[in-house]
Amino acid sequence: MANAIRVLAMDAVEAAKSGHPGMPMGMADVATVLFTRFMTFDAATPRWHDRDRFVLSAGHGSMLIYALAHLLGYERMTIDQIKRFRQLHSLTPGHPEVDPSIGVEMTTGPLGQGISTAVGMALAERITNARFGDDLVNHFTYVIASDGDLMEGVSHEACSLAGHLQLGRLIVLWDDNRISIDGPTTLSFTDDTQARFRAYGWDVQAVDGHDPEAVAAAIEAARATHTPSLIACRTIIGKGAPNKANSHNAHGAPLGADEVAATRSVLGWPHEAFVVPDEVLAAWRAAGRRGADAVAAWTKRFEALDGHARKAFADAMDKAVPGALPELIDAFKRKVSAEKPSWATRVASGNVLDVLVPGIPELIGGSADLTPSNNTKAKNSADVQGRGSFAGRYVRYGVREHGMAATMNGMALHGGVIPYGGTFMQFADYCRPSIRLAALMKQRVVFVMTHDSIGLGEDGPTHQPVEHLAALRAIPNLLVMRPADAVETAECWQIALERRDAPSLLALTRQNVPTVRTEHRAENLSAKGAYVLAEADGERRVTLLSTGSEIGLAMEARATLQAEGIGTAVVSMPCWALFEAQTAAEQEAVLGTGVRVAVEAAVRLGWDRWIGPKGGFVGMTGFGESAPYQDLYRHFGITADAVVAAAKERL
Amino acid sequence: MANAIRVLAMDAVEAAKSGHPGMPMGMADVATVLFTRFMTFDAATPRWHDRDRFVLSAGHGSMLIYALAHLLGYERMTIDQIKRFRQLHSLTPGHPEVDPSIGVEMTTGPLGQGISTAVGMALAERITNARFGDDLVNHFTYVIASDGDLMEGVSHEACSLAGHLQLGRLIVLWDDNRISIDGPTTLSFTDDTQARFRAYGWDVQAVDGHDPEAVAAAIEAARATHTPSLIACRTIIGKGAPNKANSHNAHGAPLGADEVAATRSVLGWPHEAFVVPDEVLAAWRAAGRRGADAVAAWTKRFEALDGHARKAFADAMDKAVPGALPELIDAFKRKVSAEKPSWATRVASGNVLDVLVPGIPELIGGSADLTPSNNTKAKNSADVQGRGSFAGRYVRYGVREHGMAATMNGMALHGGVIPYGGTFMQFADYCRPSIRLAALMKQRVVFVMTHDSIGLGEDGPTHQPVEHLAALRAIPNLLVMRPADAVETAECWQIALERRDAPSLLALTRQNVPTVRTEHRAENLSAKGAYVLAEADGERRVTLLSTGSEIGLAMEARATLQAEGIGTAVVSMPCWALFEAQTAAEQEAVLGTGVRVAVEAAVRLGWDRWIGPKGGFVGMTGFGESAPYQDLYRHFGITADAVVAAAKERL
Repeated sequence: MANAIRVLAMDAVEAAKSGHPGMPMGMADVATVLFTRFMTFDAATPRWHDRDRFVLSAGHGSMLIYALAHLLGYERMTIDQIKRFRQLHSLTPGHPEVDPSIGVEMTTGPLGQGISTAVGMALAERITNARFGDDLVNHFTYVIASDGDLMEGVSHEACSLAGHLQLGRLIVLWDDNRISIDGPTTLSFTDDTQARFRAYGWDVQAVDGHDPEAVAAAIEAARATHTPSLIACRTIIGKGAPNKANSHNAHGAPLGADEVAATRSVLGWPHEAFVVPDEVLAAWRAAGRRGADAVAAWTKRFEALDGHARKAFADAMDKAVPGALPELIDAFKRKVSAEKPSWATRVASGNVLDVLVPGIPELIGGSADLTPSNNTKAKNSADVQGRGSFAGRYVRYGVREHGMAATMNGMALHGGVIPYGGTFMQFADYCRPSIRLAALMKQRVVFVMTHDSIGLGEDGPTHQPVEHLAALRAIPNLLVMRPADAVETAECWQIALERRDAPSLLALTRQNVPTVRTEHRAENLSAKGAYVLAEADGERRVTLLSTGSEIGLAMEARATLQAEGIGTAVVSMPCWALFEAQTAAEQEAVLGTGVRVAVEAAVRLGWDRWIGPKGGFVGMTGFGESAPYQDLYRHFGITADAVVAAAKERL
Repeated sequence: MANAIRVLAMDAVEAAKSGHPGMPMGMADVATVLFTRFMTFDAATPRWHDRDRFVLSAGHGSMLIYALAHLLGYERMTIDQIKRFRQLHSLTPGHPEVDPSIGVEMTTGPLGQGISTAVGMALAERITNARFGDDLVNHFTYVIASDGDLMEGVSHEACSLAGHLQLGRLIVLWDDNRISIDGPTTLSFTDDTQARFRAYGWDVQAVDGHDPEAVAAAIEAARATHTPSLIACRTIIGKGAPNKANSHNAHGAPLGADEVAATRSVLGWPHEAFVVPDEVLAAWRAAGRRGADAVAAWTKRFEALDGHARKAFADAMDKAVPGALPELIDAFKRKVSAEKPSWATRVASGNVLDVLVPGIPELIGGSADLTPSNNTKAKNSADVQGRGSFAGRYVRYGVREHGMAATMNGMALHGGVIPYGGTFMQFADYCRPSIRLAALMKQRVVFVMTHDSIGLGEDGPTHQPVEHLAALRAIPNLLVMRPADAVETAECWQIALERRDAPSLLALTRQNVPTVRTEHRAENLSAKGAYVLAEADGERRVTLLSTGSEIGLAMEARATLQAEGIGTAVVSMPCWALFEAQTAAEQEAVLGTGVRVAVEAAVRLGWDRWIGPKGGFVGMTGFGESAPYQDLYRHFGITADAVVAAAKERL
């Protein structure tokens, strides 16, 4: 059965003329043990909520998961798809792309992401188990990881967290083949990896990855522990290829026609390319249905629940928009538009969460050790303790921004929870590969990024984002939102939670800002991306475009211009991506046809699209400085006077 | 003497009304032992090349290093500067900013960066030692790191590398105070850190951080080992503050007037704020000169060298532009403009390096385990083996992109070497916090980023940068360069090495591109940022703007348009940042006044500045796909025909 994986992998890479045969051939034995003896799933019901999760962290070995999907009988993964490996619109792209219908639980390829995201799946499993009980949620998360995965810092962060939380349902099978692209791993790597994982609080075993009984015994033992488990599977990369096995030549390139033929002969596999004999296929197909009884039993238990419990579970797992959301947001907006507080938007966000968290049980918060700064912990919400106790609503991620982001992705992928987590916006850079992956995988994750400009003041340029808004706006399918006040903050939270197929990032101030949305509107104005916050008195000759904390400056500048008889509108642009989705006519109505000046305490990149070639921009041109924030705004010339001057110059 | 640090830290934070008193107060004893007994340096000759390096990785505890600088007698660090802590234009910003004249070897604050960058300093020390010998280069690198530093993934990567290379001159003093912002570190962190570092191949000791003799004995022992050393210094955060010590209340906020007074009383320090009694100051000032004899002896040895040796050392350490550079580049350009190869620009870069590395001994290359893909290893250059042998020119960084980038920053800061290192451009995201820090610190580091678009083909969207060019262009003081062919690639290397105060990032193709610079020009045309590569025949009505691999499409489109009698120029824009530095008139001359269409296989963000409101853009609008690259260009409509159509629409 394992040889079927080897041959399909080798043949597909050969046909595509690119790809990685070595890893699937090396891990074929381990994967066969895992899928024929342990994984509880049913290829005919691939989205069954209580299935064991499998993550191929070493995504370059994608043919392993595709071969498995075909052999196990996932309907869509036909042999034709295998033949179209790495071709446009196939189900078999170069690296696996999330699609549970073919057993691919997440997109992998960037090393370290898979294993780290799996930590989030295992955590979400325990959190949903704590809410819904063993009858509905009771499964394992398995990972195949490579040497490269374990060298990446993100895996260190996430595995340290997994050890801390004692995620006993997480089992990592490490493809300990000691070969990387440059050559033997000893060129650059001499960690005692087993000792390192023990230091994280994991249990660790080491086995011959080509000895099925040894692998099975290790998995059995790993399932019984209360800690996450690493099983070091000593394997030979490209096993079966007589001349290229155990060398980096088997890693990332086709074996070549001669070596393919020689491998067939070594493996005793006389069949043509892509042909799997019936009896082997039948054995695999039976393995693919080994969870069918479990699915049936689970379904019976599920259907025995009352309607309310069924709906609560289904809504959570199917990632519905929380029913309570619109009312909670509306009440909050009504209240703050009347009370007009001068809160920092991070404080506003904290106050929104105080309302949302009790009303929406799926919300699971956290922070990378900046809880009191990020305002991410709702009043009275308890910590997820781990170590057997997963009933809380708040995760202490530690100083592990990247690990946090990957973990949140895993939680979203698993379902049952809606993860949000905070750090300083400067450290969005630390999380960036995971933020990108959330966008690529279309996952509802909310990144709460506070201290979003020079407005954080004294902490200085290492902590002051200046390029981050532009850099984040560049990521496709990420909603970057920079609300101007408490009302917009609530609206942005609503957008983030309603958007089921995209992550959101909230850029929030450290410093206080005035409430500018002082008249209650039921409509979510921020959902248009940009809107006229204050129309001109008289003919509109100037439009001031701004976001977040600089909206206050724009409003001041408007008052000055209006006092001089110059009709001036202020447009708030909390989310460019949503505004880009509006029609050209809608955009033009908002932007106006007169003079445009933008003000944002960040670099100009991207603003030219909105201000046009003659427009003005008041913002940053380089890094910040350390000083009280009022001094910095003056020092960098980001003032209402500068906005007025830029407008008048252009009139 | 340690209390002088405590009191200055506490007073400065109090005056600034913000900052972190706890860490300096906790580590005052350790720092006192280090600086009065071990650090070899002379505050009166702060830039002495053979000084021991000290990195305060826990940059939030900046008052520790400022207090030290003042007490040790660095001339510029007056008590007035201490009083102006965290104020505009002071030498005492919220987090330390690189300035060797006050003993600040690097900018710290983003956790994990300091310790990781120190790895590069220690590596550069050994590499320059291998080149110049013990007489000139023979020093230690000391680090004070916090719990947070050790939780960050980047420190894991760099420390694993340091262990592999056996950087015995690296000694990390870990402030093991077990308090983080959220509370006790046990909230989120239960690693056995000592075991973890042993697993990296470090030697590890643990001491009471308030017992000077124990600390001294540990440092003494650490200096004698052949591996990097971690000394866990068990300390009490905010030590001396009777009510706030050992709690997160001492971490990141002023102690308050009452607690400051109480601390003075506990410490038996009756002096007013910012006053250090003469005898204490005198003892510190003496410590600040303890390396004066070493400097004198070193200077004698240096001056005894012949002129050639002196110049070679001084040029390397003073970060001169390599003298051999212009000639090497010119010869290369002459050759390839005549031969017109169809190389991928990554191949061109490799060929440039084959010329530069033998001619410029400062160049130290490397790759994060993508050597054969990044083409970063020059022919016949040997590996830096570590483990006692540092004579090579190439570092095997392993799958540690972030650690590589931080290490390169440290090498540049140390001096004596010019580091460059490669990975896939997609993984620029993994390095981003260190890339930013290189820009902020104005360090000459060259990031070689290959596989820079959908042009990498089958590896698919996880590996295809689409937003990365925009996101990197947003970083101030980073030269993002995307050369079009082998000639521009050589020019970009020249720019990168000539620019002493900024890092450069080369975006290079996987796929082949034609040579478009077929006529030799001695001038470095790329240095203008953008230039007319092909002027219109007849009146210029259309200007096509492009970079890198899409220049070929622009040239094809130009041919079509010219054939229809439409005068069309092609502008190559290898580096926006350099073009932005040109005058408006120069820019206009290049961009032309007619129709403009840009073509780049990346997102539009930022292009509006160059194409104007009526301009056309042919590029990406979302993530890529997995397929042969020719299929992808067609699929996404990035073709010469599309460029032609966009131009004609606008005529």
